[in-house]
Amino acid sequence: MKPKQQVKRVPNLFDSRVFPVERIELDGVEESFLRGGRNLFPLLPKALAGISQIGVIGWGSQGPAQAQNLRESLQGTGTRVTVGLRTGSESFMKAKAAGFSEADGTLGEMFSVIAASDLVILLISDAAQAQLYKKVFEALRPGATLGLSHGFLLAYLEAVGEHFPATVNVIAVCPKGMGPSVRRLYEQGREVNGAGINTSFGVEQDLDGRATDIALAWSVALGAPYTFKTTLKSEVVSDLFGERSILLGAVHGIVEALYQRYLDEGAKPEAAFNRACESLTGPIRQIISRNGLVGLDEHLDANGRRDFRRAYDATYASFKGVMAEIYDEVVSGNEVKSVVMAAKRFSEYPMTTIEGSPMWTAGADFRRHRGQIKTDVDGFTAGTFAGAMMAQVDILEEHGHPYSEIANESIIEAVDSLLPYMHARGVAYMVDNCSTTARLGTRKWGPRFQAILEQVTFPAMVDREATPDQMPERFLTHPVHEVLHKLSEMRPALDIAVT
Amino acid sequence: MKPKQQVKRVPNLFDSRVFPVERIELDGVEESFLRGGRNLFPLLPKALAGISQIGVIGWGSQGPAQAQNLRESLQGTGTRVTVGLRTGSESFMKAKAAGFSEADGTLGEMFSVIAASDLVILLISDAAQAQLYKKVFEALRPGATLGLSHGFLLAYLEAVGEHFPATVNVIAVCPKGMGPSVRRLYEQGREVNGAGINTSFGVEQDLDGRATDIALAWSVALGAPYTFKTTLKSEVVSDLFGERSILLGAVHGIVEALYQRYLDEGAKPEAAFNRACESLTGPIRQIISRNGLVGLDEHLDANGRRDFRRAYDATYASFKGVMAEIYDEVVSGNEVKSVVMAAKRFSEYPMTTIEGSPMWTAGADFRRHRGQIKTDVDGFTAGTFAGAMMAQVDILEEHGHPYSEIANESIIEAVDSLLPYMHARGVAYMVDNCSTTARLGTRKWGPRFQAILEQVTFPAMVDREATPDQMPERFLTHPVHEVLHKLSEMRPALDIAVT
Repeated sequence: MKPKQQVKRVPNLFDSRVFPVERIELDGVEESFLRGGRNLFPLLPKALAGISQIGVIGWGSQGPAQAQNLRESLQGTGTRVTVGLRTGSESFMKAKAAGFSEADGTLGEMFSVIAASDLVILLISDAAQAQLYKKVFEALRPGATLGLSHGFLLAYLEAVGEHFPATVNVIAVCPKGMGPSVRRLYEQGREVNGAGINTSFGVEQDLDGRATDIALAWSVALGAPYTFKTTLKSEVVSDLFGERSILLGAVHGIVEALYQRYLDEGAKPEAAFNRACESLTGPIRQIISRNGLVGLDEHLDANGRRDFRRAYDATYASFKGVMAEIYDEVVSGNEVKSVVMAAKRFSEYPMTTIEGSPMWTAGADFRRHRGQIKTDVDGFTAGTFAGAMMAQVDILEEHGHPYSEIANESIIEAVDSLLPYMHARGVAYMVDNCSTTARLGTRKWGPRFQAILEQVTFPAMVDREATPDQMPERFLTHPVHEVLHKLSEMRPALDIAVT
Repeated sequence: MKPKQQVKRVPNLFDSRVFPVERIELDGVEESFLRGGRNLFPLLPKALAGISQIGVIGWGSQGPAQAQNLRESLQGTGTRVTVGLRTGSESFMKAKAAGFSEADGTLGEMFSVIAASDLVILLISDAAQAQLYKKVFEALRPGATLGLSHGFLLAYLEAVGEHFPATVNVIAVCPKGMGPSVRRLYEQGREVNGAGINTSFGVEQDLDGRATDIALAWSVALGAPYTFKTTLKSEVVSDLFGERSILLGAVHGIVEALYQRYLDEGAKPEAAFNRACESLTGPIRQIISRNGLVGLDEHLDANGRRDFRRAYDATYASFKGVMAEIYDEVVSGNEVKSVVMAAKRFSEYPMTTIEGSPMWTAGADFRRHRGQIKTDVDGFTAGTFAGAMMAQVDILEEHGHPYSEIANESIIEAVDSLLPYMHARGVAYMVDNCSTTARLGTRKWGPRFQAILEQVTFPAMVDREATPDQMPERFLTHPVHEVLHKLSEMRPALDIAVT
């Protein structure tokens, strides 16, 4: 069923004076995009003309990745990459260890670096942005460009009734993957041209018409194989929504509910973990990454297809209901307000970790003799996960997001960035170690996904015997498959290595 | 640990020109209160002088109870009680069946009744109030009194930047129990003077200094054994907070988590249900209602005390963390905004029920041969529930709510209204059939309580052998016990009968 007030997607176009922008039609709507690659590096100096210093502020997840990628891509150009951090902080030592130094002017105190940079890439945490934005704005030179990798600051300023200073450009380049993936795939890109994490870019303030090219240059220098346009508002909404849904929140809820379900069916803890979690972060994720969601079809036998259909048909609507709620909470500003309030409670109520939960204890046992146990594509797990993924795709589509954003935020970021890390380190590790904003969102919404599956969706499911042994028609014919196929042709196929 | 910005409780006083107001000291802070009872009925005409018609608008949970109680209490006075509803609605027929009739002017179309009444008691649902408030305000006579039984409309008006009309009194009388309890205990009050549900009252607008006495008369006529003062803001915050916490949300999460825990320990479904749910809504609730929380002490043996302490010590801080979040979400207006947004999604995403969940299926089996199975006070269940109750008491106390409100909203309403109904009909029935606002809140927060218990609190718990066999000191010495004892002396002891 479509919502009554569906927002129609419109052509999502942009031009560049420097880069060869192409067009693509995604589900009938045209979008501009820039195909990245090291072959574009010679164009960077033109796009960044007049920018003699890029200040990368912060050393969390994105900071180390972006600072190192930019330094490498801009080597030998007139643009220096300088990291700005609190002097004496632990991060300061880490940046030093990564080769940034006070001696050669590539490392310095945060606000001095901001004041001395033509492009300031602000990668401190959401909470730190909320706390320090006034000082940052004051330090910015008139005519400089403020760069963000996430629309959070815009949403925060809206919530408190403030604005960006009128004297600077404001742009965003938002990698659709965690910092470590941005770095890891860039490194792989040395051998395979075009390997990298896709990004979206947005221009919020443009003083002299050059903001788009600065953003595109930043994105190319990060190694993005595919850059598409968004707005800061659309980005922050899809980003906060996505991490609360398929990227973290839904995955967390799904694996917990499936684990309990398989236990209830009589599986031993390690076998239940294998079906619920290992299958998802392993073979299911790999197949979607290589061949898209429809790739799951050929890996399932008749019983597997029956399980897939049963799970998909039952879960899709439940997921969509929770996700419609998440979308409303995000777009209304409630969710940002919640994050700000939560940060104020941390001194009294510190966040707890979930790594000691029964499933993660079983997971830790499982992982100790990984490789000795075979992990198949579990049809029921795949159907549940696909139900959540498609629900997210449809919610974003119904709210008018461009399909590049939908596909990246709902599928590509999941299978090429988050899930490989979850496979390497565990879903619990991700939930306990992602950004504070994501972590709060996951802990808030994960249990909602789990509860609706356990208390409503699974108990109401039809019998396996009554389920046809084909995949659901509305899954197989969904336009996202064609979109994914087109987008996958834009970048080299490679295995995401997480070590 | 106390929060940094604790709000100090202050004396909570009021006077009356008609009723014999008394004073009580609760945990060192003075409060005024009115002891109710049928002996005060002769004072009602004086307090309601000039009010020839009370219009009771709505026939949901509170409507039937308040209309019937008021009619009975005001029989033979100059004040008529008239029910106002949508003509031709199902409610209209129900009100007729309860003896209200168009012929004698005690039943009519909603807005005509509003326009013809001197005191309008607005008991339509929160969603309907949000939808119809403008029409209601327009229909009110200048000089009339608008009565609410919940501060929701104030919170809603704040959220949309609107105000009550300046030409009317605005008061609230808020029974600390569901409508059916308000009616049932009033009926029991015919034999046992003073039986009834406690209420809080608040005066938001007072045109001529008579608003307090009108509110007190309304409360006495409902059968409230104990009436205390609050503000509409304090009421709506404590009410929304309470139903999301101990009254519904926390209970729902607790029984689900305990049920799973007992299953994991090897119990069969019915035995797990007996320990997790039946023990709570049965003997644990009865003991607290009769002898307060400390009454649990004498019902437990050494092992039971060990279980109680283990559960209490582990859960209290976890509950408090979630409840601190709920309190912030409510007081910030986020929660009201969420309810309003959710109501707009219902046509596309109807609310589902939880009655088919595995626990409720086991519960239905259990209930079919209830009486054949003995139900004891389970120490672990009691300790978990007490942990949640005390966490709620402390959160409200730290935010400066008067102790009458704290005790009623956290303990008395639970054990004398909600839990007896849960015992009779099931927790799932309550969750699926309470007000939309409460239902949304329960479905949002119940899973959060469940998840933190299952994933964080229970796995981190100390061994039973390492636990002393005394109740926790900080539980036994909590000031709420003395408060409860004082309040219990204000009303007759009687078993809450739910049929």
